[in-house]
Amino acid sequence: MKVVVWNENRHEQTNQVVADIYPKGIHGAIADFLKEDNFEVRTATLDEPDHGLPDDVLKETDVLIWWGHQAHDEVDDEIVEKVQKRVLEGMGLIVLHSGHFSKIFKKLMGTTCDLKWREADEKERLWVVDPTHPITDGIGEFIELEKEEMYGEHFDIPVPDELLFVSWFEGGEVFRSGSTYKRGRGKIFYFRPGHETYATYHNEKIQRVIKNAVQWANSSDTPVPVYGNAQPLEQIREK
Amino acid sequence: MKVVVWNENRHEQTNQVVADIYPKGIHGAIADFLKEDNFEVRTATLDEPDHGLPDDVLKETDVLIWWGHQAHDEVDDEIVEKVQKRVLEGMGLIVLHSGHFSKIFKKLMGTTCDLKWREADEKERLWVVDPTHPITDGIGEFIELEKEEMYGEHFDIPVPDELLFVSWFEGGEVFRSGSTYKRGRGKIFYFRPGHETYATYHNEKIQRVIKNAVQWANSSDTPVPVYGNAQPLEQIREK
Amino acid sequence: MKVVVWNENRHEQTNQVVADIYPKGIHGAIADFLKEDNFEVRTATLDEPDHGLPDDVLKETDVLIWWGHQAHDEVDDEIVEKVQKRVLEGMGLIVLHSGHFSKIFKKLMGTTCDLKWREADEKERLWVVDPTHPITDGIGEFIELEKEEMYGEHFDIPVPDELLFVSWFEGGEVFRSGSTYKRGRGKIFYFRPGHETYATYHNEKIQRVIKNAVQWANSSDTPVPVYGNAQPLEQIREK
Amino acid sequence: MKVVVWNENRHEQTNQVVADIYPKGIHGAIADFLKEDNFEVRTATLDEPDHGLPDDVLKETDVLIWWGHQAHDEVDDEIVEKVQKRVLEGMGLIVLHSGHFSKIFKKLMGTTCDLKWREADEKERLWVVDPTHPITDGIGEFIELEKEEMYGEHFDIPVPDELLFVSWFEGGEVFRSGSTYKRGRGKIFYFRPGHETYATYHNEKIQRVIKNAVQWANSSDTPVPVYGNAQPLEQIREK
Repeated sequence: MKVVVWNENRHEQTNQVVADIYPKGIHGAIADFLKEDNFEVRTATLDEPDHGLPDDVLKETDVLIWWGHQAHDEVDDEIVEKVQKRVLEGMGLIVLHSGHFSKIFKKLMGTTCDLKWREADEKERLWVVDPTHPITDGIGEFIELEKEEMYGEHFDIPVPDELLFVSWFEGGEVFRSGSTYKRGRGKIFYFRPGHETYATYHNEKIQRVIKNAVQWANSSDTPVPVYGNAQPLEQIREK
Repeated sequence: MKVVVWNENRHEQTNQVVADIYPKGIHGAIADFLKEDNFEVRTATLDEPDHGLPDDVLKETDVLIWWGHQAHDEVDDEIVEKVQKRVLEGMGLIVLHSGHFSKIFKKLMGTTCDLKWREADEKERLWVVDPTHPITDGIGEFIELEKEEMYGEHFDIPVPDELLFVSWFEGGEVFRSGSTYKRGRGKIFYFRPGHETYATYHNEKIQRVIKNAVQWANSSDTPVPVYGNAQPLEQIREK
Repeated sequence: MKVVVWNENRHEQTNQVVADIYPKGIHGAIADFLKEDNFEVRTATLDEPDHGLPDDVLKETDVLIWWGHQAHDEVDDEIVEKVQKRVLEGMGLIVLHSGHFSKIFKKLMGTTCDLKWREADEKERLWVVDPTHPITDGIGEFIELEKEEMYGEHFDIPVPDELLFVSWFEGGEVFRSGSTYKRGRGKIFYFRPGHETYATYHNEKIQRVIKNAVQWANSSDTPVPVYGNAQPLEQIREK
Repeated sequence: MKVVVWNENRHEQTNQVVADIYPKGIHGAIADFLKEDNFEVRTATLDEPDHGLPDDVLKETDVLIWWGHQAHDEVDDEIVEKVQKRVLEGMGLIVLHSGHFSKIFKKLMGTTCDLKWREADEKERLWVVDPTHPITDGIGEFIELEKEEMYGEHFDIPVPDELLFVSWFEGGEVFRSGSTYKRGRGKIFYFRPGHETYATYHNEKIQRVIKNAVQWANSSDTPVPVYGNAQPLEQIREK
């Protein structure tokens, strides 16, 4: 299975706190733990040509992971359309944290994807509300993060196809923090945690969720629908 | 309640069959039966300035009905964005038949909205699969249309929030022909029937479904979420 | 519209705190505020003959509200089956708070309906996650209750058809506290708040939710499916 | 993975047509093709002690397949309760065809599970409406069965968590013929085809669906929720 970890990779260049937590970038950290599970992993970043996503790479990618924040607007519309097309063709997509405001996520959702937020070193608890789902495998009842940025409802997304996690925050908010969507032949997972100034992607349970999600988002040999003008059954043709 | 019936209004100008069935246009026919239920109805068409949807009209519209087919591409992107914004703010949207390929529907869905089709004068039966829903009020178990264009699965839409009707076609296909979606504060209903060369919008049950849908899609005083940087509970502020 | 408010009515007899908050019983308090909206309201309690739900009453009830806690087991199985039958026929059902463990709710859900709980005078915030829904009308972004019993995830229910509220609790838990279900022709709303030792049902927003839910749960003239051996279309009969 | 194929096994004893199609019984036929995929398979039938489902067998079963028709009432209520308990604990359940009226399915659904039916040697086409789902793997756009019993809407089930197949029947009906549900920690798949007088379970695509479903229904290490009285976070304990 071929996985591409895409990262804006800007905070890492300008914020020493972030650079210290993620010396190889957020993309590097995620790629590293995914390799433990023997996925074939590469990374791609905003400032590479084609944002690191030329056609031949996109074409053979099974699952794409997306982290972005301050430079959503710099992502080329044409690349976004190509990514959307690949998702509809069956490529899995995992959108992390501030990626809720990425062009690709908004395009696939059709809504503003807006939310409440607060940076106040708050405790977060991600409660599992769907204990049947493979993405929750090995996680236990909840994940506790000592300090994270708060994201609060209302989260302006379509009703998720599946709601897996609901977050509790110290300051009084809740958030639908793990949700799945189907678009075309592709599967999408949005996962809330991962503010750049915290070591969230070093947390083993968070890593487990992302590994599970990659496995889940990969589609294999599901039907390829045919669209357009269609032939009827013989009986009606002969009428 | 203020309703706007939008129609491309092109087939009516060039195809005598259509003009004979809908002398006042498809928009005129729909507006006429909606007026029976005392909705405040106006119409809007593609070739009017701003496609008949200037800001002041859009702003006060509670429910917008959309019929388009051959000229989807001529709809101005800016108008489409304004309509999307209004839906997310709470305006109801009812998309009819070939409107599945309209810019506004595709933008709100995030998928291709593609499907199978065939023009072969086939019988259609729309079976009610959700007998709790107000949109099915007064319809009975199914609606039978002697002749309609066939639309067949796979229909490339997100999983509907609610699936109300499934169509059977003589030639061997099925179709999810009545489905609802929530986007932002707005409610959306897609309803399949209504090929321009058939008298579908003169059918009383079809009219009843559209009347019910207008009533359902109108939102009243539901919460207006606040987005952005948020204050915590006092207890955490004082920490 | 005819509404019956059913209450176990036992805490009111044995606990002075409860009796002081609800001098006319929880059922009396709920009935009183529903009457403000001109619903035709009656009450029914466990210790009446047929638990206050004889056949002729059930038959003409449009919406039934259910509050129970310590005496779920004393509810007669035959009455429970009759209530289930009426729900499937189209009667609305609103299940409150500890009613999650009532025989009727468990029978309609097919799961244990178990949850976490704690009595610790905790603050609860019910956040609206679906700002399109008529049940949230007039509520604003959230409802805050100074003191309530905590209910926490995992809540062992089927995936709700619609999730309207998610609760935040001071002690670190979240809960899907407002959810809707369709069963047969009937609509069901589960609403979490209402521990007997707090004045929750005197809260105006809580009252508004229950009033909205009664309106929503009432079905009118939706299709009455026919089951069993069915005739085919003529064309196949003649084959 | 341990799979048990349960069959009523009565038609096979009394109807020569059925005995000829399924010389080893419907259970034997299903067990045979499952073994091809290296599942550990055993069978169980109504007339065995404990219907072939003693506690030690149930306890270690990962996925249970259920076919029943004329003798649903003879299934012991106590066994049904044990099966329900195991599903809620995480055992997968696949309910086939006339199993829609089995005690276990009705108990897990909370509805009548009633439907329309007709035995008229009709062609059936099962269209895939969810081309992302692992259960549809390798199936293509639809499955065509030359002759089957018709099942028609309205099918009185809760709204499926996922709708995978919709059937078309020659005589004018449609049916939601492949649907998934989550109950507790268990996953359930209902699959329509399989009338005893047709060779449906010898069809390779039908076999593929059932194999896929077994794989999908097996849960591994998903969270085991803890219910009952719960401790709060430290901060609130110290208040």
